[in-house]
Amino acid sequence: MSDFLTLKADIIKNFGTPCAVVDLNVLEKNISRVQKICDNAGLSNRPHIKTHKSGEVARMQIDAGASGVTCQKLGEAEVMAAAGITDILIATNLLGAAASGALSALQSRISLKVCADNTYSISAYAEAAREAGRILDVLVECDTGQKRAGVETPEEAFNLAQLIDNDSHLNFKGLLYYPTKNNWKKTEVFNAKLVELLSSKNLIPDIVSTGGTPNLQNLGTLSGSTEHRAGTCVFNDLMMVKDGFATMDECALRVYTSVVSRAGKDRGILDAGSKALTSDQGGLNGFGFIQEYPDASIHKLAEEHGFLNLVNCAVKPSVGEIVRVIPNHVCVVVNMFRELVLVRDTKIIDVIKVEARGMLV
Amino acid sequence: MSDFLTLKADIIKNFGTPCAVVDLNVLEKNISRVQKICDNAGLSNRPHIKTHKSGEVARMQIDAGASGVTCQKLGEAEVMAAAGITDILIATNLLGAAASGALSALQSRISLKVCADNTYSISAYAEAAREAGRILDVLVECDTGQKRAGVETPEEAFNLAQLIDNDSHLNFKGLLYYPTKNNWKKTEVFNAKLVELLSSKNLIPDIVSTGGTPNLQNLGTLSGSTEHRAGTCVFNDLMMVKDGFATMDECALRVYTSVVSRAGKDRGILDAGSKALTSDQGGLNGFGFIQEYPDASIHKLAEEHGFLNLVNCAVKPSVGEIVRVIPNHVCVVVNMFRELVLVRDTKIIDVIKVEARGMLV
Repeated sequence: MSDFLTLKADIIKNFGTPCAVVDLNVLEKNISRVQKICDNAGLSNRPHIKTHKSGEVARMQIDAGASGVTCQKLGEAEVMAAAGITDILIATNLLGAAASGALSALQSRISLKVCADNTYSISAYAEAAREAGRILDVLVECDTGQKRAGVETPEEAFNLAQLIDNDSHLNFKGLLYYPTKNNWKKTEVFNAKLVELLSSKNLIPDIVSTGGTPNLQNLGTLSGSTEHRAGTCVFNDLMMVKDGFATMDECALRVYTSVVSRAGKDRGILDAGSKALTSDQGGLNGFGFIQEYPDASIHKLAEEHGFLNLVNCAVKPSVGEIVRVIPNHVCVVVNMFRELVLVRDTKIIDVIKVEARGMLV
Repeated sequence: MSDFLTLKADIIKNFGTPCAVVDLNVLEKNISRVQKICDNAGLSNRPHIKTHKSGEVARMQIDAGASGVTCQKLGEAEVMAAAGITDILIATNLLGAAASGALSALQSRISLKVCADNTYSISAYAEAAREAGRILDVLVECDTGQKRAGVETPEEAFNLAQLIDNDSHLNFKGLLYYPTKNNWKKTEVFNAKLVELLSSKNLIPDIVSTGGTPNLQNLGTLSGSTEHRAGTCVFNDLMMVKDGFATMDECALRVYTSVVSRAGKDRGILDAGSKALTSDQGGLNGFGFIQEYPDASIHKLAEEHGFLNLVNCAVKPSVGEIVRVIPNHVCVVVNMFRELVLVRDTKIIDVIKVEARGMLV
């Protein structure tokens, strides 16, 4: 039996399927690679933990040189704080957690950095900081083309920065960007203008943050940037392969899943459906790449069924076979699993909880 | 302040947003309605718990007259067993849980009914039953057009039934169908032929099971059927509204989410993204219906951002406003939340855990 057949047998015997399995060799290489990219660009590395949602993996990133972490939700920050991480940026308007008191509760224990693109958020942050009895660092979120959150003009950003600076409970900490591949130039112009406006009031952004794994390929392009936050690169996935950032071998996570039905000649069913692989196709075809059967496609999902099209496979899998699936979008897939099994080569090393999964507030 | 504004304020203060909120009045009506539909058709009601994944809601269904429950995963059955439910059907080929020993462990505590569409599964079940020291009931899964799991011919089903019957650890318990709207006639022909074959060997199916909420509209159409398993009808969603089974008022669950950004005139951002509403559109447009702004659309999701298009709204929501979203496909949305907040009219009554979320094996 090949080593991988032995590993598959060990996985199903110990955990059943579907099971999310992370190769530690690849994970360590990915962490080290991204740290080097940031180091070479002279930027701090502040990984986004949305991808792994694990205190243990975050610690590996910090140990490799990351300056802190990025979270998207207060509940994620709580998990990171519990893992001993003290430098935490939450990269969004945090209204739900501000209203529920969760923000002030965590801020009273550790110093947080949060983001705002509007006056309502700033008022909510001021109130939370007042309750916590500790100055809250606030970054202004700027949009340069993604049309998500973020003010659209340097003037709006400048006004918010002054509002933050004028509040005795808040500290203007910096600027948050998410420049996409095609708008670094626009971001450059936006940021230059904004920094000029800020300088007129002696407001110096400590942090000018860029984001995204694809954008690691353009790192350092924004003059004045101080740090980068990227999530997916810790594991990588088919989206990152398509994007040219990673190879299949650099994808650290695979979903081990059993072929549970072969009721038709050219079709089959996996025990991983949309509650494991998710319906998020990441702009690609299908729902993952099957390592053992590159010519098979997972063409459709029901909640707990993955529909296999095997028409192009010369050899087709049998019921009971375990296959490894590289997900289209790994960040949402990890969020479906309660735990990740860590392996090195073909040995099971550890099991870690996806501690921050379902931390929606 | 209207009652609903008070409730929204209570929800965000106690839980933050996004928050999954279930109206008990609607839930109770839905449970009672489906029980009556099954009673009127002379069929046992065996609700599929995939939708709510909660022992407490399952108990409500049993108390209303359900004969037992349907699960899709062994881990779901473990949760139902812990809630005191003893009549449990697992409607799939359960290979992962059979291989990990989880099936025999649960079968040694309570008697389960499982399904098979192939000989490999039957062997795995026999082994699990032998280990558990208790006869395992097995149904044969039949496909009459859905092309998911299930044998495609009465002859194959007959062969599997005999194989089950011949195994001293297994008991042939019946037949599992999922007739879709357009193939009741085909299912009728399939089942009649199969029952004829089975009779020749004195094999009588105790259970002939049909499934699906949409199919509640054709209930009793299959002669010889004994029970129905439907999941979504406990909460309902936009798919069931589109299908004609439910009205908006019969949708029991809403995601309460905050408008966290309004950086452009005709756009906005909700704090519910694909990790709350999921990328599963259920064949519909958008990612949910906003009760307060019927002319708004959630046209795109990032992981934690819902992208609002407000161009058609005469009045547009402000940052800080809480809106209620009816999901496209409620079964996958519930699976993203750690808990459900139960309300009656506009009062918070209880909070229950989504105990079986992430039970993938």
